[in-house]
Amino acid sequence: MDIVIGIDIGGTKTKIGLVNKEGECIEKTFFRTKEFPDLDDYLNELKKTSENLISSVDTPLNILGCGIGAPNASSKNGTIENASNLLWKGSVPFIEKFHEKMPMPMRIMNDASAAALGEMLFGSAKDMTDFIAITLGTGFGAGIVANGKLIDGFDGFAGELGHVDMTMGDGRLTGLGVKGGLEAYVSATGLKRTILHMQAKYLVDSRFRSIAYNDLHGEDITKAAEEGDEIALMAFDYTAKIMAQALANFTAFTQPEAFVLMGGLTNSGKWIMEPLERYFNEFLLEVYKGKVKLMHSGMQGKTAAICGAAALIWENHS
Amino acid sequence: MDIVIGIDIGGTKTKIGLVNKEGECIEKTFFRTKEFPDLDDYLNELKKTSENLISSVDTPLNILGCGIGAPNASSKNGTIENASNLLWKGSVPFIEKFHEKMPMPMRIMNDASAAALGEMLFGSAKDMTDFIAITLGTGFGAGIVANGKLIDGFDGFAGELGHVDMTMGDGRLTGLGVKGGLEAYVSATGLKRTILHMQAKYLVDSRFRSIAYNDLHGEDITKAAEEGDEIALMAFDYTAKIMAQALANFTAFTQPEAFVLMGGLTNSGKWIMEPLERYFNEFLLEVYKGKVKLMHSGMQGKTAAICGAAALIWENHS
Repeated sequence: MDIVIGIDIGGTKTKIGLVNKEGECIEKTFFRTKEFPDLDDYLNELKKTSENLISSVDTPLNILGCGIGAPNASSKNGTIENASNLLWKGSVPFIEKFHEKMPMPMRIMNDASAAALGEMLFGSAKDMTDFIAITLGTGFGAGIVANGKLIDGFDGFAGELGHVDMTMGDGRLTGLGVKGGLEAYVSATGLKRTILHMQAKYLVDSRFRSIAYNDLHGEDITKAAEEGDEIALMAFDYTAKIMAQALANFTAFTQPEAFVLMGGLTNSGKWIMEPLERYFNEFLLEVYKGKVKLMHSGMQGKTAAICGAAALIWENHS
Repeated sequence: MDIVIGIDIGGTKTKIGLVNKEGECIEKTFFRTKEFPDLDDYLNELKKTSENLISSVDTPLNILGCGIGAPNASSKNGTIENASNLLWKGSVPFIEKFHEKMPMPMRIMNDASAAALGEMLFGSAKDMTDFIAITLGTGFGAGIVANGKLIDGFDGFAGELGHVDMTMGDGRLTGLGVKGGLEAYVSATGLKRTILHMQAKYLVDSRFRSIAYNDLHGEDITKAAEEGDEIALMAFDYTAKIMAQALANFTAFTQPEAFVLMGGLTNSGKWIMEPLERYFNEFLLEVYKGKVKLMHSGMQGKTAAICGAAALIWENHS
C-alpha cells in the first residue's frame, strides 16, 4: 500500500501519522516536542518514532515520502525560522538535516498552508481553485490557494494574516509586536482578551468576574454563552464582527470561493458562526455578495494536521 | 509586423494603440467615451477608430488580437459590471458584443490587473513571479501576481484593494460605501480629502485656507510641499503612513517581491515616496524586512495603460 508519512510539529506535541491516498490516517503516534531542545536529538527521535510506526503495521508499505507542517516554516527554503513556540532558535535548516537521517522525498510548509492543501486534496475544498483556509487556535493562521495553487510568496512566508493591522496602528499588540493585529482579536487567545475588555468596558455582572485570565478556557466561554452570560455574548459578537471585517477584506484580495474554517475557536459553533455570517454578508462589497461561502473543515479534527502535512507529498502523486 | 490592439477604457477617454512585441506603442489615438452613451454606438466607434488607426500605418500589420483594460471588468465573464464612472449600467457583455463586430482573439480585464500584466511582460516586473501593481489615481487599484500568474479570483473580481477597511468600520466612506476604505485615504482624491482633514484638525496657516476643495489639484499639493506648506507636508506624511500600513498588510498576504507603483499620486515624487519607504520598513513584519521593494512603473506614462491592455494578448504569444 502506498503511504505518506505526515508530521505535525507543534510547540507541545509532535504528531506522526501514516496517510493513504484517500487522506485517511491509518496509524498515528506522538511524542513531546519540548523534551528535545537539541535539534539533532529531536530528529533522531523523529526518525526512530516514524520507523517504529511503520513497522507496527502488518501490511507491507511503500513509503512515498514525508510531509511536514510546522509554525514559521518556509517551503521554499526548507527551513523553520524564528518560531516563537519552538525551542530551536534562528533559522533551522530542517529539511536538509532531516533528509540526512531519512533519505526520501520530503517537504515542509507553514502549518496553515499545509492545512489548505489537505482541504484541497481530501477535505472541504475539493475541486476549488480559489479558497482560503483559516486556522483559529492560539493564533490566526491562513493558507491561501489561488489559480489552483498554494501561494508561497517570494520567500515562502505568504499568509501571515494574523499580523495584518486592522486599526491604523491603534490597537492590541500581537506576539510579534503588531499594533492592532488581527490575531490579537480573532483567535482563542483573542476571545479571552475580549472577555477582559468587555468586563472593563461594562458594569454588567458575569461569571467571568470571578475567573482570572490564566484560568479561563475557550469551553468556559461557550458554556457561559449557552447560559446567557452577557459578557460572553458580547465577546462573541465583537470577535465575529472583527473577523467578518477581516474576511471581507481578504475577499477583496484574491476573491476566494470559500473560507474553510478550523481550529479551537470554531468549536464554539453557532455562538461565533451566526454573528460571523451576518456581519460578513453586511461587510462584503456588492460585487462579492452571495458568492463567498463560509465552511467548516472537511478533515477529522484529530488527524487534520497530520493529513494536511501528508498532502504536501500526495499533491505530487495525484 | 505582429501587432496587438491595446484599448484603455476610461471614464473620460478611450485610448487605442498598436503595440508590438517589445511592448512599444507604435501608433495611438483616442476618442471621448462619454459621447457614446449607447453601447452599440460606442462599439461601432471603437471598431471604426481601430480600423482607421491600422490603415494609417504604412507597414503591413498582422493583428494578433485585441486586449482591453476597463474599470470593473471581469476577465472570467468578459463583462464590465456596474462601473461607477462609465455610462453603461448593470452587467455589460462587452467581449461578446465587440467580438460580433470585430472577430479576433479578444480579452478584457480590470485596468489595474492589465497594468500588472504589462509590468510583467514589458516593465519593472520582468522575471518576477510574485508582485503587486498599485494604481494611485482617482481611486486605488491593484493587480496581484503570485506563482507567476495574475490572480483573477473565483469570479474575476480579485484585487479590489481600494475597498479594504483599515479602521474597523470607523473611517471615511469610499465611493462604494465602505467605511474606512483604503482609497478614501490613499489616492489622488484621498490626498485632497486629507488636506481638508488637516485644516480642520490644526490651526496652522496654509495656502489651502483660500482654495476650495473643487479647485484643488494634486500638483498644487506637491508645489505647496516644495514651498514648505505645513498642511501639505502633514497631508503627505499621513497619506504615506496609511499607505505603508496597507502595503505591510498586503505583504503578509502574498509576500510579493515588489510593489510597482503608478498613477497620479506617484507624480508627487519624494514627498510621498520618502515617508512611504520609512513607514513601510517600520511596519513590515521582521520576517519580510529588507525583502520587499517599492518600485516605480517601468512603462511610459502616456501609453502604459494601452500597453498593459495589449499584454493580455501578448501574454499568450511569448
